[in-house]
Order: sequence, then structure tokens, then C-alpha cells
Amino acid sequence: MGQRIRFNAFQMNAASHQSPGLWTHPRDSAHRYTDPQHWVDLAKLLERGVFDGVFLADVLGVYDVFGGNHEAAVRHGVQVPVNDPLALVPLMAQATEHLGFGVTCALTYEHPYPFARRISTLDHLTGGRVGWNIVTGYLDSAARNLGLSNQLGHDARYDLADEYMDVVYKLWEKSWADDAVRRDKATGTFTDPAKVRPIRHAGTHYQVPGIHLCEPSPQRTPVLYQAGTSPRGVAFAARHAECVFISGPTETVLKRYVDTVRGGLVAQGRPADDVLIYAQALVITAPTEAEARAKHRELLEHIDVEASLALLSGWTGVDFSKYDPDAPIEHVDTEAGRTALASFSQTDPSRKWAVGEAARFIGLGGRGPVIVGSASQVADELERWVDATGIDGFNLTYALAHETMRDVVDHVVPELQRRGRYATSYSDGTLREKLFARGPRLGAGHAATRVRI
Amino acid sequence: MGQRIRFNAFQMNAASHQSPGLWTHPRDSAHRYTDPQHWVDLAKLLERGVFDGVFLADVLGVYDVFGGNHEAAVRHGVQVPVNDPLALVPLMAQATEHLGFGVTCALTYEHPYPFARRISTLDHLTGGRVGWNIVTGYLDSAARNLGLSNQLGHDARYDLADEYMDVVYKLWEKSWADDAVRRDKATGTFTDPAKVRPIRHAGTHYQVPGIHLCEPSPQRTPVLYQAGTSPRGVAFAARHAECVFISGPTETVLKRYVDTVRGGLVAQGRPADDVLIYAQALVITAPTEAEARAKHRELLEHIDVEASLALLSGWTGVDFSKYDPDAPIEHVDTEAGRTALASFSQTDPSRKWAVGEAARFIGLGGRGPVIVGSASQVADELERWVDATGIDGFNLTYALAHETMRDVVDHVVPELQRRGRYATSYSDGTLREKLFARGPRLGAGHAATRVRI
Repeated sequence: MGQRIRFNAFQMNAASHQSPGLWTHPRDSAHRYTDPQHWVDLAKLLERGVFDGVFLADVLGVYDVFGGNHEAAVRHGVQVPVNDPLALVPLMAQATEHLGFGVTCALTYEHPYPFARRISTLDHLTGGRVGWNIVTGYLDSAARNLGLSNQLGHDARYDLADEYMDVVYKLWEKSWADDAVRRDKATGTFTDPAKVRPIRHAGTHYQVPGIHLCEPSPQRTPVLYQAGTSPRGVAFAARHAECVFISGPTETVLKRYVDTVRGGLVAQGRPADDVLIYAQALVITAPTEAEARAKHRELLEHIDVEASLALLSGWTGVDFSKYDPDAPIEHVDTEAGRTALASFSQTDPSRKWAVGEAARFIGLGGRGPVIVGSASQVADELERWVDATGIDGFNLTYALAHETMRDVVDHVVPELQRRGRYATSYSDGTLREKLFARGPRLGAGHAATRVRI
Repeated sequence: MGQRIRFNAFQMNAASHQSPGLWTHPRDSAHRYTDPQHWVDLAKLLERGVFDGVFLADVLGVYDVFGGNHEAAVRHGVQVPVNDPLALVPLMAQATEHLGFGVTCALTYEHPYPFARRISTLDHLTGGRVGWNIVTGYLDSAARNLGLSNQLGHDARYDLADEYMDVVYKLWEKSWADDAVRRDKATGTFTDPAKVRPIRHAGTHYQVPGIHLCEPSPQRTPVLYQAGTSPRGVAFAARHAECVFISGPTETVLKRYVDTVRGGLVAQGRPADDVLIYAQALVITAPTEAEARAKHRELLEHIDVEASLALLSGWTGVDFSKYDPDAPIEHVDTEAGRTALASFSQTDPSRKWAVGEAARFIGLGGRGPVIVGSASQVADELERWVDATGIDGFNLTYALAHETMRDVVDHVVPELQRRGRYATSYSDGTLREKLFARGPRLGAGHAATRVRI
């Protein structure tokens, strides 16, 4: 029996996430993203499927690289409109007992002092089921609307991020002692002031002299997720992350990311298996292979090339409106563009790829693989990806909300459980305890617990 | 039959709010503020009592004026620990159908672009039941932790606030046309890009060129609450507010505030009754007068003078640790301090007041009156305050969570209903419709709808 396979659900508080044309499918219900019941239903479904958690993506800007404006993104609903992901956590937590929440918050967009309080609040209200996907932000449009003339450079964002992490670690881990709060009605001592310390942070980017505003929450620091695969991003993840999300179209690409991340951990003095790695994937399944293939064909008809290129342009910073969809990808005259497209063409190097074909690849399921078949076939395939790449599980996207997830929960989860490769129930405790079977808090070796105040 | 009397519940995501020593009472349960069920219970209770809403106070700092440090505030739990109020809204909205939510957010502490999205998200998820209590922030400790060397001056804060309001109004009211979102699966048009406009805001404090990230929510702009009673605060309220919170210990003080606010509205070209005014009050009631008076005596024993002075020092900026609690209030050598204390002494000008006695006044129910008696006596008293001052209702604080609110709902609400002075059910629609029996959106005369982009 192989190692356990883990599932996260990859979602966004928007009508369209990783399969940008699929909202046009008659059975898609993602446009219900403004209805709380949409999220309550999802949370209950995922908990029934013993998912580790729901991972909420976010952008604080629009995909306006394609054509130099927001028109294509707006027309196709490409991650716009997009609502605040944090508001979904209390909702979904109320409807569940165990499901975890990994919320994307770009640290360049909010000051660490109020942010630390927001997360502590959610960790309290969820009984310690909150994770934070640390991103530094990649859309210039977001930076511009925050009054910055443009995004900080990539490495500069990570330098700022390191200081940001120091500030929130000091607030979460060091400001309040475990036994600071007494609630001693007899002496009138709610909190022992000697056990609450100002963090006195005086850095390059932030000055935070005071105490954290929140008493220690079940996890103190939320479970830390990261998704960077650049050298600086990997170094950041190796220092901070407990879980890593990766996305790539082939086993080769994924294995390279996995090796890089695990190598980065070792370089930081952490065990290679100290993080859980989830790879993005889309599973299309049904009771029989024939039905699954029919469903897949039906979904393919809803791919939208322009919408996909708008997404890809935002991810890469390359304006793909300049290229004929029929042009061979070698005609793309920027290296970033060619590299992005070439990675998709590796899924089938036997033929010549055009720009539009690469767009069609990401049009269903984004940058990850699409795995189609009966439960048994999908399970075989998932096991193969895990065993070949060294990932710990999958960050599963949807084509249709919530049908795709329901299919996985109803068909694939029971099959993996029969094979002994998937949890049949949750363990107790906080999200961190469920993931790592250690304590509710970060261990002494982690950067968070080593900060000094 | 007089006009309808309205109730809001004045709460905070903290263990101690307006009656700073009362957490030591055996029956108080406010320390359960980190438990979602605490808030769900409250929301259901208030909806049973047909309250207009729950008003969530907030500070993003500590009360560290008293003694020049945070010790007294921390020891007595004086509004610290304090969690993020916004996280409570999705929770309480899920448990109710009609209750409104007025959330305090200091606009000097978050950039308007992400803030506008946070509020739009909540307005969507609550079906249009969100209000925003606009505050400019009054604690230096908050400003310092955000990296500002100190708070902006009082009037400068309001100038910045006016620009902030322009930005959020543009985002909420002007960026997306009502018919922008099409969700037309046949043509693949999620949103008509011609109906979504960048706001192109280029101001003194903020540069926001882009579009709002959210589609129009039920109310677009949340119901706007304000609490300032300074001349600049009143001018701000007269321009922006739909509801105003005031607090004062006597009818004379309240009537002066009411007249000032209503006069300010007229000066801005708005009808004098264009805002609903809620005055802070604490109601102590029980089935009989004797039981209510006994309960009141019991509560008085839990007042904490030091905790009250810590609160008052934060509100006024005057360090009251420097004065003997037995000193007559005339001995206070700052005008702000004397003025604050003198207003409480007006509740009983027949005797000499000392500093500690003024602290005891605010120690139970803060700056508002404490109304004690049977349901019938309390109803008489509330009617009298409304008729004498011109307020529309009360912002009711609690001494004990949630006993104080339960007593009001069980005893006072039915009594006022019998008298025809309190609603017996909610009307349909958004919070704005429930409050004003007009449409879900702000009217054409409001500053929000007059901004241009």
C-alpha cells in the first residue's frame, strides 16, 4: 500500500476560476458565488469527502495584460468580479467541523498589524482551522489601485515579505504568553500584563512597537501555504511554508518543482518531507469510463480561447492578444511567453503546437493535468502521479461548480479509500494537527518561533 | 401613540465593551467572544426582539493613555483582547434573515480599494444587510502600530476621510452599471465591458485608476453610520450619514447633539429627519421593579474604577491616573478632562462629584444613561427620552452578555409593542429598505450618488 493521497479543493470567491469558459455550461453554478448557501453546500460536500481543506485563491486586481485593458477579462468573467475570500471562512467553518481553510492574502496589500488580527480572529472562530497562502502579488493592476506606480520587483517583494513575516510571527508567537489570559474574576485580572509584551519591531518597511491585539488562538500562526516556484520563491517557501501548492502540466515539470522545493528545505536545515506538496489537477469522472469521456468532450466545447489567453497573459505578463491563435508557439517573441507555452506542448511533443492550442490546454483546468476516466482509472492515474513525482496530494480544480467536486467525492474518494490510500475520517485537533499529527502550534525549529522581541 | 422606537445592540468582538468591570460578574459570558456560537445566539436573540441591527464597535489599538502604558487596559480586559469585527458578520447573517449589521471600520487604517471589496462582499453574502460605521480613529496607539509617528490631527483626519469616501463611492456607485452583469451563456458574455468603468480617481491621498472588483451588491453603498459630535464630525455626518450614534448622560446633552446633527443636515440641504439617531443606553430590567433594582445593585458591585478610568483616558486623551479618585473634578487640570467629567456630574448636580465617582458613572453602561425598572417603567422612561430629545431609538449596551439583551427582548420589547411604539415584525428588503422604507440604494440626493468618474 502506497502513501496516503490528500485532496484540497481549489476555489475562488468568483464566478470563474481555473476553467475560464466553463461558466457558460448549463450545469455550472459558480455564478452563485454571492450566495452563502453555495459555499455552505461546498464545505459540507468537501467534508463528506474528507478533503484536507478548501484553498481560496485571490487577486486584488484584474487581468488587464491581454490587449492592454480589462475588456476580455470582464467580458468572460475571468476572475472578475472577485469578492473577498476571507468572508467565506466563518460561513464555511460554521457548516463543518473539520474542514481546513487556506486563504490567499497578498501581503503587499495590507499592513501586517491589522492583518495579524484578521487571521487570529479567524483562527479563534474556526477552532484553529485556518491556513494562509502567502502571496506577494503578481498583478500590476492591483498595485496601481493601491497607489503604487507599479508592482515592486519580484525579488524586492520577497525581501519585503520576509520582514512582513517577521512582524506577524512576533505578533502571533511572541506577544502573548500561553498563560497570559487569566480571566480571574476573583482578583479582577483578565490578563496578566507582565505576560503580554510589545513586539518593538523597527524594520526597513514596518514599525510596529505595540502588542498583538488578540489573545493566543488555537494555532497562533495559521498553517502556512506557499506557491512560488522561482528560486527566490522556493527559498521563501523553504523558510516559511508548511504546505506548498504547485501546478504544472506534466509529471516531469511537477517532479522538478518537487525536487526543488524539497532540496530547498534541506538547504534550510529542514527535513525534505517537512512540507506537504499539493499539485493542481482537474478530475473528470463518472460511473463509467464512457460517461466520463462523454462529459469531458462536452466540457471541452465550453473552452474559451480568448478568456484563456487573458488568464495566461495575466500570469505571465505577456500580451497574447498580439499573436494569431494559429501561430506556432515559436513565433512568440518573448522568452516568458515561449517558455509558458512550451511547457504545455510537452504534454504532447509529437505534434506542432499553436498559441491557441496552448490556450485550449489551460482553458480546462488551468496549468495542471486533466485526468479523465472511471473512478478506478482516475485512482490509478492519481497514484501514478503521486508515485512518479513525490507530491503528497492534489489541489483539485473544478470545471463545473459543484458537480466536479461532487463527482470526486462520490466516486474517486471511495475508490482511493478502498485502496487504503485516502483517509476515511478526520483526526482531531487543529488543521495543523490534522495535517502533521504533531501539536497545534509550529515546532521550535520553525522561523516563526525563532523570532525575538 | 408616539413615534416608533428603534433598538440597536451595541457590541464589540471583545470580552469587555462599555461596562469594563462587569466581566467579573459570575453570570457574564462575554469571554466567549471567540466562540462562534456566542454570536449566533446573540444574533438570533436580537432578531427575535426585532432589533434593527447589531452595531459592532472596534479599535485597532489599546487604551494606553492611562498611566502612559497598556497595563491597566490589559489587566482589566478593557477592550483588549479585541478581534476583527468583520468576521462576525457572515456568521450572524447565516443565523438570521433580517438583522442588520453596523460594522465599525476606521478608514485611516485600510486602503479604500480592498476595503470597498470587503464591504461589497459582505453586502452580497448578507443579502444587503450591511452598514458601515465610519470612524477616523482616535487611538494614537493604533496609528503608531501602522507605522505613523502619530495620529493625524482631528480635522486632517476628516479631510482625508472625505477623499476616502469619494473613492469608495465611486467604486460602489459608479464603476458597474446595474445591467453590467449579463451572465449570457449563449454569447459567452459574463459582463458587458462597456458597462464597467474605471473610476480614474487621482486625489491628494489616493490614486485609484481601476474598476471596482465586485459586481453591484444589493445596497451598493452599505448603510452609513457615523458617531462624531465635534463640529467637523457633525459636518461629515451631515454629508454622509444615514444613521447617527450619540452618547451622553443626560437628556440635555443628547438633545443638544440631536439638534446639532439635525441642524447640520438642514445646512447641507437635507431634511432634518433624514438620519436615524440612536442614543447609547443601558437597560436593567426584570419582571418586577424590585428585582430590577436588586439586579442593578448587584451589577454596581462589579464596577471597576481603574478600568473605567483607562477607558475614559483613551476616549479623552487625558491621563486620569494622575488624579486621586477622591479629588473633586474641578481639580483636573486639563479642560478636556474637566469637560468630560462635568457632563457626568450633570446627572446629579445636587452633590459634589469626585473623579472616581465620574468613573463609576461610566463603569456601568459607558457614557449613556442607565435605565432601571420593570418593563413598564423602562418603557415609560424610554418614551420620555425619545420624546424629550428627538432621538429615533437606542443603541443598547449590555452589562452582562447576553443576559442584558435577553431581558430587554423578553420584557421591554413586548411592552413597547403593546404600546404600539415598537415594530412587531421586520419589513422586507435590504437593511436600508427596512430602516427607511425607500429603495435598497441611496437616493439621488446623497453625496455618494453625486460623485463623478
